Amino acid sequence: MAGHGHPYSPAELELPGFVPQRLSQVEILAPFLGASLLVALAVWLVSGRCGGRLSRTDRLLMCWWAFTGLTHVVLEGPFLFTPDFFSKEDPNYFDDLCKYHRRSLYRFIISDSAEYSKGDSRYAARNTGILALEMITIGLKGPASLLAVYAVASRKSYSHILQLAICLGQLYGCLFYFITAYLAGFNFWVSPFYFWAYFVGANSSWVVIPTLIAVRSWKKICAAFEAGKLKTR
Amino acid sequence: MAGHGHPYSPAELELPGFVPQRLSQVEILAPFLGASLLVALAVWLVSGRCGGRLSRTDRLLMCWWAFTGLTHVVLEGPFLFTPDFFSKEDPNYFDDLCKYHRRSLYRFIISDSAEYSKGDSRYAARNTGILALEMITIGLKGPASLLAVYAVASRKSYSHILQLAICLGQLYGCLFYFITAYLAGFNFWVSPFYFWAYFVGANSSWVVIPTLIAVRSWKKICAAFEAGKLKTR
Repeated sequence: MAGHGHPYSPAELELPGFVPQRLSQVEILAPFLGASLLVALAVWLVSGRCGGRLSRTDRLLMCWWAFTGLTHVVLEGPFLFTPDFFSKEDPNYFDDLCKYHRRSLYRFIISDSAEYSKGDSRYAARNTGILALEMITIGLKGPASLLAVYAVASRKSYSHILQLAICLGQLYGCLFYFITAYLAGFNFWVSPFYFWAYFVGANSSWVVIPTLIAVRSWKKICAAFEAGKLKTR
Repeated sequence: MAGHGHPYSPAELELPGFVPQRLSQVEILAPFLGASLLVALAVWLVSGRCGGRLSRTDRLLMCWWAFTGLTHVVLEGPFLFTPDFFSKEDPNYFDDLCKYHRRSLYRFIISDSAEYSKGDSRYAARNTGILALEMITIGLKGPASLLAVYAVASRKSYSHILQLAICLGQLYGCLFYFITAYLAGFNFWVSPFYFWAYFVGANSSWVVIPTLIAVRSWKKICAAFEAGKLKTR
């Protein structure tokens, strides 16, 4: 634990009223991974019932868009609306025993941002760049990702262009995220483990997968124009 | 002139070694507007010689992409590579009289960032968010805009998707730019004139025009897929 009573890096970061996290890393990550797998499984099974119209790739894409959309809205959303997440005790109105589950969910939501801050303390510090990124992610990319699930399922003509737009937004966001971290000192993680696991590891999915989807959608769109050209010749 | 010897806002911003600008506002803006008009005119005339294949809209788009691409690279580029632009005297190696034009160009390039900083002092302060934005703009959006001139002229199948991708990047950048300014205190301009003329006015072109182009390209791409669907029925 550093000089200012919190575990984050850099040690001189001031977090008035800091309260240590109550949940362990496993208690935070296991529900997240479990819920994500459940969502993906549900989307996979439901999309399989669409009378065989959807290819395996389309069904996998739907799983991804449901996962990333819900992550943006449900997991990242509370970060915006609980600016003092690192100082939250359980609030009083949760002390009724029958409200145990709501309290657990609340605790989980608070702990998620606190845990991720070990890999990037700019979240705990409410860095303006991070806040702006998260506002755009939660307000635009999250809902657009959920729309993409529907667009892929119903084979809308805007499906590829919507997917490409979200992917470019995610890649732009990641690029910005990494460049600002580099320019601002590159010392926002508790240890190399958190650097690799959270800062690099957790974010790399939002570099690799959007790149693959963007390339695929780009090719499909070009092919649609090529087909149009052949037709009009 | 504020307490710290520079004209920028907020007054407490520290700019060690600040040297007042030598060029007036007119001496900075007139060459920029003049050169922009010349570029647009040249592209308009050259594109008109393409044997009538290109529509007026395509030719206007080419003018815009040439203007925005060159602005990103030529006007914004030097900002990245002259971190101390606000403290630059004319460097010694320009003191030969026959190097007058190089000196003028250099002075103009330095003054451009100094002048714009009156509308947003985060440029003079080398704010990390602004630096990251400019890196992405200069490194990716600038070259991609110049590629778009070629793509529109030669009616490439990737023309619309490329234009949409750049437009979304520009809109994402503007959104980020305005949100971070709001979160960081919204006090980066010398006076209301500079707020409206530079911060709002100069940037609004990169909100309005990319929105129009993005909507147009989005519709064209959807139409290409609709045409494909009709064909396969």
